[in-house]
Amino acid sequence: MPGRDYLAIPGPSVMPDAVLSAMHRAAPNIYEGALVDMAATLGPDLRRVARTQGHVAMYIGNGHAAWEAALSNVVASGDTVLVPATGRFGHGWADTAQGLGVQTEILDFGKKDPFDLARVEEALAADTAHRIKAVLAVHVDTSTSVRNDIAGLRAALDRTGHPALLMADCIASLGCDVFEMDAWGVDVMVTGSQKGLMVPPGMCFVFFNDKAASVRAGMAQVSRYWDWTPRANPEQFFQYWNGTAPTQHLYGLRAALDMLMAEGMEAVWKRHDTLARAIWAACDVWAEGGALSLNVADPDNRSRAVTSLRLDQGRATALRRWTEGQISLTLGIGLGMAEPGDPKRDDFFRLGHMGHLNGNMVMGMLGGIEAGLRSLDVPIGDNALGAAAQVIAG
Amino acid sequence: MPGRDYLAIPGPSVMPDAVLSAMHRAAPNIYEGALVDMAATLGPDLRRVARTQGHVAMYIGNGHAAWEAALSNVVASGDTVLVPATGRFGHGWADTAQGLGVQTEILDFGKKDPFDLARVEEALAADTAHRIKAVLAVHVDTSTSVRNDIAGLRAALDRTGHPALLMADCIASLGCDVFEMDAWGVDVMVTGSQKGLMVPPGMCFVFFNDKAASVRAGMAQVSRYWDWTPRANPEQFFQYWNGTAPTQHLYGLRAALDMLMAEGMEAVWKRHDTLARAIWAACDVWAEGGALSLNVADPDNRSRAVTSLRLDQGRATALRRWTEGQISLTLGIGLGMAEPGDPKRDDFFRLGHMGHLNGNMVMGMLGGIEAGLRSLDVPIGDNALGAAAQVIAG
Amino acid sequence: MPGRDYLAIPGPSVMPDAVLSAMHRAAPNIYEGALVDMAATLGPDLRRVARTQGHVAMYIGNGHAAWEAALSNVVASGDTVLVPATGRFGHGWADTAQGLGVQTEILDFGKKDPFDLARVEEALAADTAHRIKAVLAVHVDTSTSVRNDIAGLRAALDRTGHPALLMADCIASLGCDVFEMDAWGVDVMVTGSQKGLMVPPGMCFVFFNDKAASVRAGMAQVSRYWDWTPRANPEQFFQYWNGTAPTQHLYGLRAALDMLMAEGMEAVWKRHDTLARAIWAACDVWAEGGALSLNVADPDNRSRAVTSLRLDQGRATALRRWTEGQISLTLGIGLGMAEPGDPKRDDFFRLGHMGHLNGNMVMGMLGGIEAGLRSLDVPIGDNALGAAAQVIAG
Amino acid sequence: MPGRDYLAIPGPSVMPDAVLSAMHRAAPNIYEGALVDMAATLGPDLRRVARTQGHVAMYIGNGHAAWEAALSNVVASGDTVLVPATGRFGHGWADTAQGLGVQTEILDFGKKDPFDLARVEEALAADTAHRIKAVLAVHVDTSTSVRNDIAGLRAALDRTGHPALLMADCIASLGCDVFEMDAWGVDVMVTGSQKGLMVPPGMCFVFFNDKAASVRAGMAQVSRYWDWTPRANPEQFFQYWNGTAPTQHLYGLRAALDMLMAEGMEAVWKRHDTLARAIWAACDVWAEGGALSLNVADPDNRSRAVTSLRLDQGRATALRRWTEGQISLTLGIGLGMAEPGDPKRDDFFRLGHMGHLNGNMVMGMLGGIEAGLRSLDVPIGDNALGAAAQVIAG
Repeated sequence: MPGRDYLAIPGPSVMPDAVLSAMHRAAPNIYEGALVDMAATLGPDLRRVARTQGHVAMYIGNGHAAWEAALSNVVASGDTVLVPATGRFGHGWADTAQGLGVQTEILDFGKKDPFDLARVEEALAADTAHRIKAVLAVHVDTSTSVRNDIAGLRAALDRTGHPALLMADCIASLGCDVFEMDAWGVDVMVTGSQKGLMVPPGMCFVFFNDKAASVRAGMAQVSRYWDWTPRANPEQFFQYWNGTAPTQHLYGLRAALDMLMAEGMEAVWKRHDTLARAIWAACDVWAEGGALSLNVADPDNRSRAVTSLRLDQGRATALRRWTEGQISLTLGIGLGMAEPGDPKRDDFFRLGHMGHLNGNMVMGMLGGIEAGLRSLDVPIGDNALGAAAQVIAG
Repeated sequence: MPGRDYLAIPGPSVMPDAVLSAMHRAAPNIYEGALVDMAATLGPDLRRVARTQGHVAMYIGNGHAAWEAALSNVVASGDTVLVPATGRFGHGWADTAQGLGVQTEILDFGKKDPFDLARVEEALAADTAHRIKAVLAVHVDTSTSVRNDIAGLRAALDRTGHPALLMADCIASLGCDVFEMDAWGVDVMVTGSQKGLMVPPGMCFVFFNDKAASVRAGMAQVSRYWDWTPRANPEQFFQYWNGTAPTQHLYGLRAALDMLMAEGMEAVWKRHDTLARAIWAACDVWAEGGALSLNVADPDNRSRAVTSLRLDQGRATALRRWTEGQISLTLGIGLGMAEPGDPKRDDFFRLGHMGHLNGNMVMGMLGGIEAGLRSLDVPIGDNALGAAAQVIAG
Repeated sequence: MPGRDYLAIPGPSVMPDAVLSAMHRAAPNIYEGALVDMAATLGPDLRRVARTQGHVAMYIGNGHAAWEAALSNVVASGDTVLVPATGRFGHGWADTAQGLGVQTEILDFGKKDPFDLARVEEALAADTAHRIKAVLAVHVDTSTSVRNDIAGLRAALDRTGHPALLMADCIASLGCDVFEMDAWGVDVMVTGSQKGLMVPPGMCFVFFNDKAASVRAGMAQVSRYWDWTPRANPEQFFQYWNGTAPTQHLYGLRAALDMLMAEGMEAVWKRHDTLARAIWAACDVWAEGGALSLNVADPDNRSRAVTSLRLDQGRATALRRWTEGQISLTLGIGLGMAEPGDPKRDDFFRLGHMGHLNGNMVMGMLGGIEAGLRSLDVPIGDNALGAAAQVIAG
Repeated sequence: MPGRDYLAIPGPSVMPDAVLSAMHRAAPNIYEGALVDMAATLGPDLRRVARTQGHVAMYIGNGHAAWEAALSNVVASGDTVLVPATGRFGHGWADTAQGLGVQTEILDFGKKDPFDLARVEEALAADTAHRIKAVLAVHVDTSTSVRNDIAGLRAALDRTGHPALLMADCIASLGCDVFEMDAWGVDVMVTGSQKGLMVPPGMCFVFFNDKAASVRAGMAQVSRYWDWTPRANPEQFFQYWNGTAPTQHLYGLRAALDMLMAEGMEAVWKRHDTLARAIWAACDVWAEGGALSLNVADPDNRSRAVTSLRLDQGRATALRRWTEGQISLTLGIGLGMAEPGDPKRDDFFRLGHMGHLNGNMVMGMLGGIEAGLRSLDVPIGDNALGAAAQVIAG
């Protein structure tokens, strides 16, 4: 296919040339020297991204690995966790907990709305025995693009005096949506390399504070691979990774963190905010035609990293096929919005707008979608792209 | 700068990942083996791109090298050439001829219009002594984006029975605008690697037919480096290049030719035509505001590879600064439209749309420009981007 | 440092340019298309490398992850495993089992000799209650370079009629030393990407047969991330990886498998055998000087992938410093041969000779070592390098 | 082929990863910005490599282009040059001069010995009319590996009071053998990118001093492409290159110069000297067998960049085939030592040892050759590799 591909799915995100180039390098010495020195610089910068003075354990793994890693350090078979869910990934984390023998109390808030904090608070208040060891909260559910109020959860825990750990899944949101681990009172946070961190899939991260560390210290047994203690405070280099380091990913991560540090997290968040608003501005105009709609009605509840949409009559899939086949623009499939077999399944799609992103990319994505919508004769409002350009113009 | 850069200047063009990857490889044996075998496949495919059964000589060099190489094989000090010019590059080729001691008869058609074939024919008819050895014709002048009628020149030569060689500069046009070397009766054609051929600058090509070869055979002296004879028909590998081969460029060229051959030249031309029309459609709407105008009024005279524009009150430069600084979109400077010191100098800019290009890239470029225009409060018509998207939608 | 580095540590091994180039590519669509199609080709070729008709589960992880993954599918807290150990990695796998609450019965055979099969058989015969659920056998212990007789273990199990699973760690050996999973009666085998498979660290693999699968089927609980069942027989693409795929590693792995398949496993093994014998031939001559010695006396018990050596008076470390600092040749540290604080700790070093290796590399490594030995005035025999060259000459 | 290739031909040399990585990058803006700023740093560092306060013109081209470029600025048709030749490349430069209509007075010193300075001086003294405009002297002839005394030539010119320009070809030697342009009184020097400069073929360089510049100023005509004046002192960026810049090569060159500057030219020369002596030490021992011989008897007359050898009975070619086919080590063909059809043609080969080179590479090359010699049953002395290792040990 001629022309540059644009992968606009909600992860993996577009990887910077600097990251790919940094990974294209000979295998290094893993016992001493430059790599060992460099690895020590990763933790401090990762903590700057997560806005925490706490600890960070790095793993070779994906987001699901991070889920299991985090859980393995603080809950065990027979324990109970509370899981407010706003999409497939909330349920996914709960499922991972179940796989460890953990009891899950799920509060399902559907696929279009964020946590109802009142209901969560009610559940916490009802747990007078404090059976709930942790609240598993997805900050942004990649399937629905719902963004939840994590600071609000902390307030609910505090109001009820509940000692459960607040665990946040920032896989889709970190480095895109504003997130303040310490200021928001998050005890454990998990994320992956392949979205806002702009590194290929293959690494994941668990951040934790001293409260979580003390819960870990009280665990009867934690598996060697998941144990975050030596990873966060290694005496020897191999302990960072419980074995061989993911050498090429480390180079990529270093390059990505350099970019984030150079830009500054506030600027990174502002950029994602502007570009997300540009996308929504176009979507709002397209929606005037009646065929397309944003999944999350209230902008306050939307992620700045991913946008879930509906295009009726199965045209979401047709649109994806057109943009990928005609102009090398790959949009994300709908995920978790309709079960297999449901005739509505082809009505959903998603846009990834995370990480290595700027105004010309977003205009290309939106322009490609508009071409696709026109190709499919979808009724749309007038000058959606101009509305987006106006937001970028500022 | 976050997000992918988009270099929308009229060369070098955006290079495909496949080309850059092919060049990222260890130095090869240049005496025998895989590289030697591969090099033999380049000529046939280059001839397919140029639509000729003639010869091709490859050089390490840029477009200016191709100009000098081609001239050195067919004209000498004291000879005369006719140069119809429609922009800076016509004059540049004439200057190269002058550097070789060649007399140049220049017909200047300004900066907005193509050759007036009647005037060219008149000049040829007037040259009853046939002092004119060659007509140097720029197919597309990169500075003005004027596209000239090369087949029409052949007809003029034929009608006047003039024996001069028809030499075409397709540096900006090859692989973008339709070009048929044999069918159009072109004797010598020059081009470079860095535009429609999608390879980094560093190689150039001279195509020639048997008529031109016989002119070469009659030359008193041709320098070793410029002599096209051994290059086009080497007995030993090093003769292709008159010395060491440009090894990494050869890998890149092979990858680029693979892409062109896979797509097919007709499809390549059609793609450039569609995307150029999309660009013009947006420009036409922007032009409604009265501040922006396309340099070439008649679409029939425009290149499908480059578009020269004017934006009044020096805002062309301001626009370029905004798009490069805010959204990593680099537009081309105006070239040859106003002299240094002229207050109008900041009124011109150019768009490159050649080579590795598709609809999402073009929409990104146009969307970025619209954001810039809005940022500068340039008056523009409504829904320019929608008009472009409609062209791409087909 | 001028000149090409040579990393001759026992993993990560030298990565082929083809692998690194394959990984240098834009993020792909992970929901459908080329990557999804390609991923299906990996399992069959991995099974060819491992010589098995069984199943293979791929993980994002390192060798330690593979250890834990394999164990998690077949043993649980309270179960017992038998671990014959011939170096640090045997003990390491046992430690991983302990981390899961598994009882480990360790037979320690020191650091210079392979398993004493009679003692293993004795232990199995003594376990009349069949408490031992699995025998964890390291094929090649990377620390000592001892190679064990895995087929012999199967025979011991069979002779005693013991139903324990035979689990082999081929992290250091796969793709280097001969290994025949099915023919040797191995039930579960683990390996990593970064040694004989020539891919950067970050992936690991668990192979298992139907017997092991039925043990898995009887497990009360297996964690979602470690469960090999959906990974080996996924209904959806994400199940291969329990989440996001390690996209760039998959491209690298495909390139590496292409190389192995093109060469053929028998040729791969023969190459490693020849090159290992060349290394030993040089070492034998160096050893004549009395200062250097091979850790494993009997060639029949040595790995073809890694060689552990001793150089007296702490000169192993001095040698490594000289070769790395002077000629960019990095040798492996001794591992597990002496505890921290032991004055003998600087007496040990290791050579990696696994994966992407040929005669000019091995001669460069050996030549570099000889230069270092001479620089340190270590007494050595005469013409060690000639002896190695003779082996390569064949 | 498994294992890393080693290309030990006398150019192109092994390219550093840093150079290839630097070239693997998106096309840059060629009108302003980072590339333009960087390009200005190249000249000063190139002059440091050449040890001159003079001027440097950069060209897109190979060594033959540099020959023609240099000549075109200082001699014209009808002029005479003196060419002392010690191999094919001396004759090649003379041939290039002839292609420009220049008369060449060739002093042929055969293929094994350097210039006889007395004979050169005699020729200069005889030219009382000062018809000789320049002396074209190859510093190291890549075909024979003879190294000539350039400072001695200057002395001969000075003793005879001859005003001819001293022009040196340092294509094979720059960055390897000691060269001092100013101290040695060289007026014009040419070189290419692909040997000691460690950049892929595709760029060449002409250095010149004020004396040469004044000769240029007196020329009736110099072609636009070859004219060094604007290239050495450009008013606009495009004048550096007479048109489009070789963008990717500039990045590669910057990376290579960074390496040379970091090491320092004295250290670079010392490294090449040590490694050349190691190679000769091995060759001397191999030569004891009577079948192999170094082309240049006296080490004082040998290049530190390339070594030309003979191996009798056509075994040079057999050796090259063995090393390339069996262990991916590519040796250089003999060049210019025997004409096509001569049965001795297969008796010659060459080793390149220039640029990105260290002790482990050289030992690998020598070890590979020894394996090849043994495979062919060539009689050789004992412990050649030990002798080489001893030199590297220092």
